[in-house]
Amino acid sequence: MTGGFRKKIRQKNAENSGFGTNASGRFINKDGLPNVQRRGVNVFNRLSWYHTMLNLSSFRFISYLVIAYILINLLFAMIYYLIGVEHLTGIDKSDPLNEFIDVFFFSSQTFTTVGYGRIAPVGFLASLVATFEAFLGLLTFAIATGLFYGRFSRPRAYLRFSDIAVIAPFQESSALMFRLAPYKNNALTDADVIVSVAIEVIENGVAKSNFYRLTTQMSKINTLALNWTVVHKIDENSPFYGFSEEDFKNTDLELIVQVRAFDEVFSNTVVQRSSYTTREIVYGAKFVPMYYPNKENLSTVLDLDKINEYKKEELPDSAGNNE
Amino acid sequence: MTGGFRKKIRQKNAENSGFGTNASGRFINKDGLPNVQRRGVNVFNRLSWYHTMLNLSSFRFISYLVIAYILINLLFAMIYYLIGVEHLTGIDKSDPLNEFIDVFFFSSQTFTTVGYGRIAPVGFLASLVATFEAFLGLLTFAIATGLFYGRFSRPRAYLRFSDIAVIAPFQESSALMFRLAPYKNNALTDADVIVSVAIEVIENGVAKSNFYRLTTQMSKINTLALNWTVVHKIDENSPFYGFSEEDFKNTDLELIVQVRAFDEVFSNTVVQRSSYTTREIVYGAKFVPMYYPNKENLSTVLDLDKINEYKKEELPDSAGNNE
Amino acid sequence: MTGGFRKKIRQKNAENSGFGTNASGRFINKDGLPNVQRRGVNVFNRLSWYHTMLNLSSFRFISYLVIAYILINLLFAMIYYLIGVEHLTGIDKSDPLNEFIDVFFFSSQTFTTVGYGRIAPVGFLASLVATFEAFLGLLTFAIATGLFYGRFSRPRAYLRFSDIAVIAPFQESSALMFRLAPYKNNALTDADVIVSVAIEVIENGVAKSNFYRLTTQMSKINTLALNWTVVHKIDENSPFYGFSEEDFKNTDLELIVQVRAFDEVFSNTVVQRSSYTTREIVYGAKFVPMYYPNKENLSTVLDLDKINEYKKEELPDSAGNNE
Amino acid sequence: MTGGFRKKIRQKNAENSGFGTNASGRFINKDGLPNVQRRGVNVFNRLSWYHTMLNLSSFRFISYLVIAYILINLLFAMIYYLIGVEHLTGIDKSDPLNEFIDVFFFSSQTFTTVGYGRIAPVGFLASLVATFEAFLGLLTFAIATGLFYGRFSRPRAYLRFSDIAVIAPFQESSALMFRLAPYKNNALTDADVIVSVAIEVIENGVAKSNFYRLTTQMSKINTLALNWTVVHKIDENSPFYGFSEEDFKNTDLELIVQVRAFDEVFSNTVVQRSSYTTREIVYGAKFVPMYYPNKENLSTVLDLDKINEYKKEELPDSAGNNE
Repeated sequence: MTGGFRKKIRQKNAENSGFGTNASGRFINKDGLPNVQRRGVNVFNRLSWYHTMLNLSSFRFISYLVIAYILINLLFAMIYYLIGVEHLTGIDKSDPLNEFIDVFFFSSQTFTTVGYGRIAPVGFLASLVATFEAFLGLLTFAIATGLFYGRFSRPRAYLRFSDIAVIAPFQESSALMFRLAPYKNNALTDADVIVSVAIEVIENGVAKSNFYRLTTQMSKINTLALNWTVVHKIDENSPFYGFSEEDFKNTDLELIVQVRAFDEVFSNTVVQRSSYTTREIVYGAKFVPMYYPNKENLSTVLDLDKINEYKKEELPDSAGNNE
Repeated sequence: MTGGFRKKIRQKNAENSGFGTNASGRFINKDGLPNVQRRGVNVFNRLSWYHTMLNLSSFRFISYLVIAYILINLLFAMIYYLIGVEHLTGIDKSDPLNEFIDVFFFSSQTFTTVGYGRIAPVGFLASLVATFEAFLGLLTFAIATGLFYGRFSRPRAYLRFSDIAVIAPFQESSALMFRLAPYKNNALTDADVIVSVAIEVIENGVAKSNFYRLTTQMSKINTLALNWTVVHKIDENSPFYGFSEEDFKNTDLELIVQVRAFDEVFSNTVVQRSSYTTREIVYGAKFVPMYYPNKENLSTVLDLDKINEYKKEELPDSAGNNE
Repeated sequence: MTGGFRKKIRQKNAENSGFGTNASGRFINKDGLPNVQRRGVNVFNRLSWYHTMLNLSSFRFISYLVIAYILINLLFAMIYYLIGVEHLTGIDKSDPLNEFIDVFFFSSQTFTTVGYGRIAPVGFLASLVATFEAFLGLLTFAIATGLFYGRFSRPRAYLRFSDIAVIAPFQESSALMFRLAPYKNNALTDADVIVSVAIEVIENGVAKSNFYRLTTQMSKINTLALNWTVVHKIDENSPFYGFSEEDFKNTDLELIVQVRAFDEVFSNTVVQRSSYTTREIVYGAKFVPMYYPNKENLSTVLDLDKINEYKKEELPDSAGNNE
Repeated sequence: MTGGFRKKIRQKNAENSGFGTNASGRFINKDGLPNVQRRGVNVFNRLSWYHTMLNLSSFRFISYLVIAYILINLLFAMIYYLIGVEHLTGIDKSDPLNEFIDVFFFSSQTFTTVGYGRIAPVGFLASLVATFEAFLGLLTFAIATGLFYGRFSRPRAYLRFSDIAVIAPFQESSALMFRLAPYKNNALTDADVIVSVAIEVIENGVAKSNFYRLTTQMSKINTLALNWTVVHKIDENSPFYGFSEEDFKNTDLELIVQVRAFDEVFSNTVVQRSSYTTREIVYGAKFVPMYYPNKENLSTVLDLDKINEYKKEELPDSAGNNE
């Protein structure tokens, strides 16, 4: 980190980021979640299992359900087996393994409330356990119903951010740009963006982070249907004013981006966040267009695969070199 | 497109529409969704199946459910058949077709957890598959429950827009008007409307679209129970100032309308959008009233069938001809 | 209606009520819904059945479910009966009535997926219908689950309004007051109130309604835990300025009240509306307090039965008579 | 309560708290709910059972479900027993107790729709009751599904407040501080805080409460991922200006705190409230830091067990003693 650039930052510490000035590492992970670990309290109080279940991938969520289903049935199979197979009708008593297999299937037929009745409880204890298991089964599926609904009705923005931000020529000066686009068949309106930057500086020999709000050229748009290139012009009000390519490389900085929009299917505000660190900023480059009219000129085509495409482009003299 | 009218547009490009200036075709379809096609990414990532399922018509949604139900049962019937009908009790083994029919019904009785037990699994493999099928059945209905709830609890405005907008006489000048009315037994309050217009102009030989916000006479109302005629007065601040009937016909324009209101049953903000293109604007016409007191004079009647009714009406001299 | 009072209304028509000036009858019913009838469109498109089901009383909702359950079972019983009881095992064939009773119970055991199996389908047609009925049963209960959830998770304010408003002495003048209180164990915060009045006047021999916003002394409160007396002071800015008791009696007016608050269990804004007409305003009266410290002085008691209690109280000379 | 301090309160009564000036006891309980009892109306109308079910602890909620399940089955067992066990097949008729046990299990198998069929209804009355019981069972589980979903999808802030507030040295003067931290894996953004204080004063011999809004140094933060120390500087605009340690001890005061934030999983605003009374304020103390970089310096660790840790610290002369 060079000492020179720090004098160039002319803006006041304008943001209450909520991060202390001596937090360490990336503040916001690429997926938008804060890079913080929690200790203390006990782990069960510290986890919101609903948040946990909603943040799981579909594959892991289904896997957990299947595993829970198998474990519950094994548990109940053991209970029925200990109670004694003579409390159940229709069990294949040829050998202990077959007995266990049959009580396992009896358990699953009870838990799912299929209840064919080929195997059925006759004794008091087995009946009692089955009574409880069927009840448990229904409550479990009640919870599963809620989780499925919670998972797929969870309002999300479904935005794709470009992996990199660029420093591009802009209005005879330069600008920091990144872009984003909705990649699903959702309809977003009234979108706005907030961009902050955390810059690590050394004061009195101690590294600390300062936070600045970046102004953008267009911070609200009506319909977020095409891609949106967010533009922060590097002028005298920018904390990057006068930064050279070297300065950008040698500064520990992190752009923190938050996009809000209104989704008409969820009828709710959706929010998505991302961040860009020093390594994810390309100096002297320009994004290539990613939408074009369709063949019949009757509609517009948005090509999402181009979101990261850029070409190198010299910055004007006035940018970066006017120290 | 005549060149004359373009000089008449005196307003600055005041809107961030979110559409690029060289997008093509209608921007917003009549149903309020943007006229954009997405490419790239793969189709599964590009579709939010929840949005898709919620946007289906009821008929198609139910049909998909029925088809899925039949296909799943056919699949499991095949599995049971391949495992062997000797693993099931109560099968009619008179001929292979009857066998297949019986395993199909066994499958459906398992999937729905009816489980009469007339046909029941005895072998290990058939029992195992049935265990899994009953589980799958319950999860499927858990998802169906969520989708049904998502579909009918989805906040919607239930507004009907007039098919056409009119240019009508208004306060010794003229105004662009369209109207809308809630057509269901929902109660909307605190409604507001935003009207923009996209006008295609040719700059340096290239067609591009400019966007303008239109001011309206009454952009908020307390209770949206009767019809609401939205009025944009064509005065010197309007982009249409001085437009003649010819100008309206020869200009490629698109009105983009967004209505928001608060629905008291959903306790949520609901939004509905629509758009009007050049062909959907009638010059020199006036809407006829669509509500009147009921016979006993104790209530007001809103006649929704009249929403598109208008009568031709000469515009005053001052409108449209003062070039 | 006397002609004199109309001259007294000094305020401009300040409100966009959303009601036309020649709507008739009460605008807002006592329960807060607009007094409007819709015609045209067809009745199925005009009803949002979800809104309808959510607005039903619990008793009617449950009754409809029970009736639907019986009708569906009768329908399927008929189908099974027509197919022939020989397609079912375990039917009591002693006489046609017993046959019908048994197929009815078979239908209910299929629809609810109990499926004891004492009666079970053996023939192709009966099995097919049962396959469909069990599927229909599960979807029906999926919908019922959604409706139950929709009904009880619907954000509501649970406010009780006083049946009457009073014209009471207030700060050496007079004020129009009504009060409201939360009557359930919900916690409301950040409440605000909007009060409008519709006054019928005769212009050029035609009765029309003018709408005015009424200013209130305290239009926002932090915690809505006790009762809230909404106070509109009748001063020179009030449309009622100078109204005598006679004027209040002879004027066709309607107060339209909307209260909003944030409910912490629903985490949602809740809205409740009500209205007061001429007959529901008591001139020269004052509400009696409805809360007091509890015995131990450690908590406050809110007595909801007192919400309508008032005592007559002379108004000061300055109010109502200074024409 | 000394008489002296009252003169020191220089701020005007700035808040509409919603609590009357002669309410008694704590206004807001530690859990954020108002300390108000409701009387009148009848108890069923006064309870929102949905709010009640959502506010129950998980243990009590599950217990109530289990108890309801047992009671319903006992009730139906009695009905079947009274109808007569000869209406059911497969009953163990060795003695009346066994008969009752068997009808109890038949009831549970019907209510949960397991329906093994080992015991099955044959007579008309038993079949009719079973038809109704299975229907009731499904509706009950529909309601349970809704309650489970309502309980775990209920937006909550999951904030932990420090048990005590401190009066700490701050910028050469002193400040009232308390802190809070999110203790679960939820992501909160755009947080704000509102702090009010109720101070009991004696006017004309009657104790009444005055309410003041307290200004805070930083009332909004972008990301609520670490702890947040809310700071109210005690300067000339503070109602505590000039308060000595004695004054704080002898005054009946209550801080009322409300924190709002946006939760990205719920996509909803969440609110949490708390309060601090005189006894919960420590004079001359300072919180110790509760977060630090992790070992690898790549992330920040938040230690929730330290939230109440403070150390005594002398206040500067200028604070508290300048009477």
